[in-house]
Amino acid sequence: MTYNELHQLILRKRSFLCIGLDSDITKIPDHLKHLQDPVFAFNKKIIDSTIDLAVAYKPNLAFYESRGIAGLRSLQLTMDYLESFKSEVFTIADAKRGDIGNTSSQYALGVFDHDSSGFNFDAITVAPYMGADSVKPFLFFPGKWVILLALTSNKGAEDFQLVKTGDERLFELVIEHSKEWGTAENMMYVVGATRAEMLADIREIIPDHFLLVPGVGAQGGSLAEVARYGMNSHCGLLVNVSRSILFASSGADFEEKARDEAVSIQKEMESLLQLL
Amino acid sequence: MTYNELHQLILRKRSFLCIGLDSDITKIPDHLKHLQDPVFAFNKKIIDSTIDLAVAYKPNLAFYESRGIAGLRSLQLTMDYLESFKSEVFTIADAKRGDIGNTSSQYALGVFDHDSSGFNFDAITVAPYMGADSVKPFLFFPGKWVILLALTSNKGAEDFQLVKTGDERLFELVIEHSKEWGTAENMMYVVGATRAEMLADIREIIPDHFLLVPGVGAQGGSLAEVARYGMNSHCGLLVNVSRSILFASSGADFEEKARDEAVSIQKEMESLLQLL
Repeated sequence: MTYNELHQLILRKRSFLCIGLDSDITKIPDHLKHLQDPVFAFNKKIIDSTIDLAVAYKPNLAFYESRGIAGLRSLQLTMDYLESFKSEVFTIADAKRGDIGNTSSQYALGVFDHDSSGFNFDAITVAPYMGADSVKPFLFFPGKWVILLALTSNKGAEDFQLVKTGDERLFELVIEHSKEWGTAENMMYVVGATRAEMLADIREIIPDHFLLVPGVGAQGGSLAEVARYGMNSHCGLLVNVSRSILFASSGADFEEKARDEAVSIQKEMESLLQLL
Repeated sequence: MTYNELHQLILRKRSFLCIGLDSDITKIPDHLKHLQDPVFAFNKKIIDSTIDLAVAYKPNLAFYESRGIAGLRSLQLTMDYLESFKSEVFTIADAKRGDIGNTSSQYALGVFDHDSSGFNFDAITVAPYMGADSVKPFLFFPGKWVILLALTSNKGAEDFQLVKTGDERLFELVIEHSKEWGTAENMMYVVGATRAEMLADIREIIPDHFLLVPGVGAQGGSLAEVARYGMNSHCGLLVNVSRSILFASSGADFEEKARDEAVSIQKEMESLLQLL
């Protein structure tokens, strides 16, 4: 999906909601647990009940890897199902990968090359610590996106990301350098909603790039603040919500409650988009 | 495996060799390709021909993930096989993971908790960018190890790891902070052999910790230099070699050639250990 197609999708759905499929098997409703693949069944219902409200889905690979081969099978079924909505959703492998060049190339096959791995995500989250040659192999895939960690939503972001390196903080240096590795057409950045005011500083460096913003909902970030400091003329935001949608109810009504939560977020996004 | 058990294993095998199972399916010998699981068959032969020479094996998860579910099955068979040598080898999931706390916990289940994922690695490589709460969940597993990226062997290490943050470089700050998160009994660090002289600076900060050192062999690092600057009184080193052992020959003699290469490295290690 191109930058422009993503922008059009946002306008069409009047939403910049990304739903994080952090589908913890211990938290899914009991009535699904007798099914052959409870996690896929859960994801399918979440997707069906939110597909008109979300522009992106972001499986968090950890929640699949924790169950080994069975987990990867749930992920495969989920992605095969999302494939049927291909032009209607942007898909993100939340994987935080990054390694030396020949290894990052293999990780890229793992998420981008359907013939090799069975997966055909639009984007992958990548960690910047190992530098340019750890990130660039992901950018060799036409039409695919790298979403690089810049400023994350957790407390640990203070340990290194906010440390001063000369005149700027590390996360700013990461953005400054890395924006030269790709373009706004194939790179986005992760910026946590819990530090919304710093979005203004980030927009000084990268006015055009899309930002993937976690931390709204369970982690306490504010959507209005994120839009205020982070929105650009093409929206430029994908705001991720996971737990507060997925686990809005642990009962048989989980789909309706998930939809209610997603509707409420989409409505707020719609009104924020009208300010553009 | 404890610090002491690892030290004893090194003395017993007169080796601190870690073999990286970067088992690229496109590079394994043709005569294995008709087998049901060529990658597992390849790994098994490599293990059988080097088990007396190596103290550790380090599957590089990217080379398995690139083949999706089939790849994970090869990894599972490989790890099940290594399980039969349990007290004779230390196993490392080279995964470079790291995410917010609840997600890192899931990644930890994925490599450490056999009941959950089918995997029972001794250690995992972790990326530090997201800070303390992204690393600590891996340390909750008794007997398991975090191997944190400090100074990697690739060119991209210069982009951020070598940047000055106040008086020290980022990789030194990473080590300074993170050494408080665990102990020398459950944390190691990745330090590339291509920057062996910096091992001396690192030993000032962490005299006791084990270091996992990639970059000898195909990447050009020198074993003698690594030992000179990095060895401590418990050896304190696991030196990883991947490609120059795995792909020493692409013919039917690949096991013998892999063994020859491993023997030559082990002999050099044996003489370096005698300097202790």
